[in-house]
Amino acid sequence: MKSSKKKIPRILVSNDDGIDAPGIYALVQELKKLGTVTVVAPDKQQSAVGHAITMNYPLRVSKFVKNESFFGYAVEGTPADCVKLAARTLLQEKPDILVSGINHGSNTAINIIYSGTVSAATEGTVLGIPSIAISLTTYGKPDFRVAAKFARRLAAFVLKKGLPEATLLNVNVPAVKEKDIRGVRVTRQGKTRWDDTFDVRRDPNNKEYYWLTGKLEIVDHSEDTDQIAVMRNYISVSPIQYDLTDYRMLKKMQDWGIEGLMR
Amino acid sequence: MKSSKKKIPRILVSNDDGIDAPGIYALVQELKKLGTVTVVAPDKQQSAVGHAITMNYPLRVSKFVKNESFFGYAVEGTPADCVKLAARTLLQEKPDILVSGINHGSNTAINIIYSGTVSAATEGTVLGIPSIAISLTTYGKPDFRVAAKFARRLAAFVLKKGLPEATLLNVNVPAVKEKDIRGVRVTRQGKTRWDDTFDVRRDPNNKEYYWLTGKLEIVDHSEDTDQIAVMRNYISVSPIQYDLTDYRMLKKMQDWGIEGLMR
Repeated sequence: MKSSKKKIPRILVSNDDGIDAPGIYALVQELKKLGTVTVVAPDKQQSAVGHAITMNYPLRVSKFVKNESFFGYAVEGTPADCVKLAARTLLQEKPDILVSGINHGSNTAINIIYSGTVSAATEGTVLGIPSIAISLTTYGKPDFRVAAKFARRLAAFVLKKGLPEATLLNVNVPAVKEKDIRGVRVTRQGKTRWDDTFDVRRDPNNKEYYWLTGKLEIVDHSEDTDQIAVMRNYISVSPIQYDLTDYRMLKKMQDWGIEGLMR
Repeated sequence: MKSSKKKIPRILVSNDDGIDAPGIYALVQELKKLGTVTVVAPDKQQSAVGHAITMNYPLRVSKFVKNESFFGYAVEGTPADCVKLAARTLLQEKPDILVSGINHGSNTAINIIYSGTVSAATEGTVLGIPSIAISLTTYGKPDFRVAAKFARRLAAFVLKKGLPEATLLNVNVPAVKEKDIRGVRVTRQGKTRWDDTFDVRRDPNNKEYYWLTGKLEIVDHSEDTDQIAVMRNYISVSPIQYDLTDYRMLKKMQDWGIEGLMR
């Protein structure tokens, strides 16, 4: 392989809202200005699947064509499945960058651990591809244009600067007009979490079932968090990683005394 | 509520292999010696579901009775669903500790991010319950007795000492006789990962499908990792967390220059 000075970047795009979602369409239109885009995404909505992978069932792949400016591979699987399949089988060459999104709804604070959008980018990182997850903070009618434009600029930036081996970027964009974006903030994952409740209901046969609902309980008001940044109309960019070790606790545990528990 | 000096601990047990799996049965028999056990577990196998939660479908719960020494709630959902349901709805009082397992197969290194067993314990931690995930490192015929005994001892230890707010313990037990266990090691998550391959096959109608397979590629040989500890016949205990922020990168990004990307 020879490298030329004007190499066109190879960009892999996935998401968790499904290949037919408007967020991935808007993302691809922008990223095509930057390089060669391949879309490998779930055939249907896969929100809150976490980092699930499919081992006990076969994965089917079909070609998906929306129009001449959007086509790709639709996978009957999870976001992580899509990225594994793309990198290991469907693509001829390793992509230079992966962008996952644009998710319809925010992936800040505790939501990161449930997010399929983030999971696709995490899997990219595991496979050695610099990766970005991007979400638009609204559950109402979305306009993905600002987020798509930022995704393109950040992707160009990352292609130039690179990322540490096991680190990805998690981006959240407030759902406001471009002129109302106050800037970009580098943030940490906030501690805000869900105050879950379960609706207890009865089906037509009078059998009980539970339905998860609830609201975000903002317990972390620090200005340096993802959650607060988007609330203040900043674009939030958080570096996250998949080494889950708590190194501070690891140190403390050296004289915790559990070494003798099996004696 | 009054607390007495001899308060009996309330223990919540879940897993990802399903409520009928032998690993959770062995675990409960040991934990009953320590306190009052409530089992809330998936009604069927949920391996590699990651931290999935069910928001778009109802959750059904049924009573499960194996025999007089094992009964509980079977949930048509993921491990994280089970823990949310237990803590928010099924249990009268918040449990003092959660133990998830015993998983049939190891949850070391990169496997942690795919693991339903770990996900149940993570959800416990999110909900403020000190939590432990425990796995037996074998895919062959398992004998869960050593792991169950260690789970009980570690649970008693954690009940006494507590855990930091956002930290859980991920335990892996080598599949050897008790006399061959060399001790307990406090470890970090290793960097070992899967060398995935996809089998490309054809179904009876000659349609193509992919099946995920592969082998662990041991790229991290450090003695302080979970992976190497179990290979050396040590029980591995890793403190892990769900704050995914890469704080080192966060610091570096302060003068990375992305603040101007939307100007």
